[in-house]
Amino acid sequence: MAEQAIAVSMATSRLSPPQVEMVLHVTNRSKLVKFLRRQLIDSGRPLRGFVLLQGGEEQMRHCTDHCQLFRQESYFSYLFGVREPGFYGAIDVVTGDSFLFIPKLPEEYAVWLGKIKPLSYFKETYLVEKVFYIDQMVEVLHAQKQQSEKVLLFLLHGLNTDSGNYSKPAEFKGIDKFEKDLNTLHPIVTECRVVKTNMELSLIQFANDISSEAHVEVMRNTRIGMKEYQLESMFLHHTYMYGGCRNCSYTCICATGDNSAILHYGHAAAPNDRTFEDGDMALLDMGAEFHFYGSDITCSFPVNGKFTADQSLVYGAVLDAHNVVISSMRPGVSWVDMHKLAERVILESLRNGFLLFGDVDEMMLERLGAMFMPHGLGHLLGIDTHDPGGYPKDVERPKEFGLKSLRTARKLEEGMVITVEPGCYFIDALLVPAMENPRTSRFFNHELINKFRGFGGVRIESDLHITSEGCMNMTNVPREISEIEAVMAGAPWPIN
Amino acid sequence: MAEQAIAVSMATSRLSPPQVEMVLHVTNRSKLVKFLRRQLIDSGRPLRGFVLLQGGEEQMRHCTDHCQLFRQESYFSYLFGVREPGFYGAIDVVTGDSFLFIPKLPEEYAVWLGKIKPLSYFKETYLVEKVFYIDQMVEVLHAQKQQSEKVLLFLLHGLNTDSGNYSKPAEFKGIDKFEKDLNTLHPIVTECRVVKTNMELSLIQFANDISSEAHVEVMRNTRIGMKEYQLESMFLHHTYMYGGCRNCSYTCICATGDNSAILHYGHAAAPNDRTFEDGDMALLDMGAEFHFYGSDITCSFPVNGKFTADQSLVYGAVLDAHNVVISSMRPGVSWVDMHKLAERVILESLRNGFLLFGDVDEMMLERLGAMFMPHGLGHLLGIDTHDPGGYPKDVERPKEFGLKSLRTARKLEEGMVITVEPGCYFIDALLVPAMENPRTSRFFNHELINKFRGFGGVRIESDLHITSEGCMNMTNVPREISEIEAVMAGAPWPIN
Repeated sequence: MAEQAIAVSMATSRLSPPQVEMVLHVTNRSKLVKFLRRQLIDSGRPLRGFVLLQGGEEQMRHCTDHCQLFRQESYFSYLFGVREPGFYGAIDVVTGDSFLFIPKLPEEYAVWLGKIKPLSYFKETYLVEKVFYIDQMVEVLHAQKQQSEKVLLFLLHGLNTDSGNYSKPAEFKGIDKFEKDLNTLHPIVTECRVVKTNMELSLIQFANDISSEAHVEVMRNTRIGMKEYQLESMFLHHTYMYGGCRNCSYTCICATGDNSAILHYGHAAAPNDRTFEDGDMALLDMGAEFHFYGSDITCSFPVNGKFTADQSLVYGAVLDAHNVVISSMRPGVSWVDMHKLAERVILESLRNGFLLFGDVDEMMLERLGAMFMPHGLGHLLGIDTHDPGGYPKDVERPKEFGLKSLRTARKLEEGMVITVEPGCYFIDALLVPAMENPRTSRFFNHELINKFRGFGGVRIESDLHITSEGCMNMTNVPREISEIEAVMAGAPWPIN
Repeated sequence: MAEQAIAVSMATSRLSPPQVEMVLHVTNRSKLVKFLRRQLIDSGRPLRGFVLLQGGEEQMRHCTDHCQLFRQESYFSYLFGVREPGFYGAIDVVTGDSFLFIPKLPEEYAVWLGKIKPLSYFKETYLVEKVFYIDQMVEVLHAQKQQSEKVLLFLLHGLNTDSGNYSKPAEFKGIDKFEKDLNTLHPIVTECRVVKTNMELSLIQFANDISSEAHVEVMRNTRIGMKEYQLESMFLHHTYMYGGCRNCSYTCICATGDNSAILHYGHAAAPNDRTFEDGDMALLDMGAEFHFYGSDITCSFPVNGKFTADQSLVYGAVLDAHNVVISSMRPGVSWVDMHKLAERVILESLRNGFLLFGDVDEMMLERLGAMFMPHGLGHLLGIDTHDPGGYPKDVERPKEFGLKSLRTARKLEEGMVITVEPGCYFIDALLVPAMENPRTSRFFNHELINKFRGFGGVRIESDLHITSEGCMNMTNVPREISEIEAVMAGAPWPIN
């Protein structure tokens, strides 16, 4: 038994975690300084002050000493790549020098939590110019003070357009001695995060590689009668065991049967705990994170390994949308147009399959696509699964049903990473009212649609890197029906 | 490859998750009501009012929409067993009736997060008398109002003696209309949690069974050249895949080599990322949680499967302490005495191994044991890994080095579950000063101790249920050196 276990544990990945190069974050900081300086110059402001960010803190669960595994705040990750909690980081706008301010740990730390590392360790690890203790921060930042003028701090304050929450600007004792700018930094550093460097792309690629491989493993090991969470467990294990990915980009969505019509299934109140049955579709939306950078991949397949005609119809509609969108993506293309293109392809397929009647243009006018795909076509991806920057000041969120769920309405730009995740779901809460609504009722083949109620849904999601000419799919999983059936029957992937 | 994977995925557990019986929480509530009434009567107070608790809320990561997987607040788990966030729960002190107050979910919830369940679902699932929406709470609780008197609410407010934090009493709009009692509830419900019912014991037993099995799997699959986190990944996978344990009791500690002297290794700043080598010891402290109830198990073993003489010496010292303590545990025994007993056994073994010289009584007076075992011998275990109730009002925390780290100084009582986790570590931060201290220097065989610096440490931890006559070990893993070597060489466990 032991030998068998080892055979599998050791032999099912072609991958191993790459070396993390901290120069990635040096580059991120340089990029920020360049854009910040440019903006200051363009607006006639003097070059002075520091960018100052506060890193995240460990969180205890309620009143207990149960400590959640810490994951760094995302903007702090972007600029400093620091995995420890309780840090501050600063960048001198004039010199470009970077500073880390670290907590002074009590002596007992060495006994309970590990060797207390010297300042030099953090300087070398994180490639910053200087490292001090937090209690030196006010003094160090004051060193730039000239005459009577207060030292200027650019603090992070701005809206996350996905959550509706504002980032919390750094706080510390003595901050009142500084001049604060709360408006300039957030849009600039957010815009820096939108366009990825090659080093960032290579981490996102690794997260995609290991997650793609894990999806294939899960597909192969899916058996009727399992629980949904067993698929989650296999995914988590594969990405951690072979990819060193301790965190996922988001809670795994392992939905089977009707659950696959619940877009964000898998949370604590719907915890992937159904036993799935012959004939069910599975919709698995799972992505690992490596050194802060994530992936976001969805595979949909029949749990018994063979598509029925109905499953092929819905799956084919979504796959066509996925493929047509990808073949249309390039810099300058509007993401709203891509969303509508996906809707149109799906509606056409449903009409060809006799689930819908009538003219697709008219359906589009009635926003019928959103009855089958109420979420947005995709979102920026990076250090956050829903990476920020989808709605800068000059981009307005659409108001129409479906379109308003888009996490960005931007035009594509070279260097963006964006998910393409069309879906087609049979959601009673949407379909029943639409079938009863006199404006839209006529489009539906009521009898056939009713047959599909309980089917759940299909989503196909890949991560795309926008290149100068088009785009590159970073995700590598079986997509064609024949590929999925072959891999589930034991064929290697990629198929030789 | 697919078939091989399945062979392991499907064939390596004798266990499957038990059915969770919500009557467990009905019993917990009855127990609380009984003790609360008794206390009110004993102190001449009238029987009136409600116990009112606020459940936990989902947490977003900083400003983003990244939602941490929700795990219910522990007191709320104890009384109501509710897995959903955002609830309130009340118990009528007079009638004993229980109420849940649930959030009214927006219509979109059905599309994004799942079917909106009716009130009756929660009544049936959680076996409470009545379920209302939160916006009805003030009105429902007011129904008990008599004449001019305000309705009394017993709120949860008290110190967690492990974290030093206070539990947060329920808050809601309209709470000012009620009379509040912040002092009575916390000590009573905490004391209820200290003594486990049979139903609670059976969940802790399952968490122990699946975690024990997972430890054995990890032991068997440990190979030189692996990363520490690969051991964590195997453990997490086994307990989730076969035990349905989505949460662990705490972040896994997978320490090898010198890291095994870091008591709480494995956190984000020391993330189980060392590659281990031939000759290293591993110290794996990992426990799964099932339906809120946890386990807490440590195994120590040589990564190459064969103990050296030095490793046997240190391991044997700790195992003797573990076994002697367990054979001495029964109701009425002082936990401080058990801690000292463990220290004494370890010191004697180290003296027999020529690491120490002199009289063990004198060593005890100088608190020498704490130089090798700076943590407490063990702690109450239940819904929290460090279950509350270690220091009720009448029990004082010892002040001496080592003893002050004890999470309880109580006498053992039937129905307690407590960990026994002696350890022996070579921690420079403690040993170097002790060897230089004129009071303690003479005890050390400096030459031999110096040879052991860098060894790391050994911890052996089992979960014990205190019975009427003694105690029962709920953990079932190889402990004897011969057992560990046999299992690591492929023998079955339990050994036939």
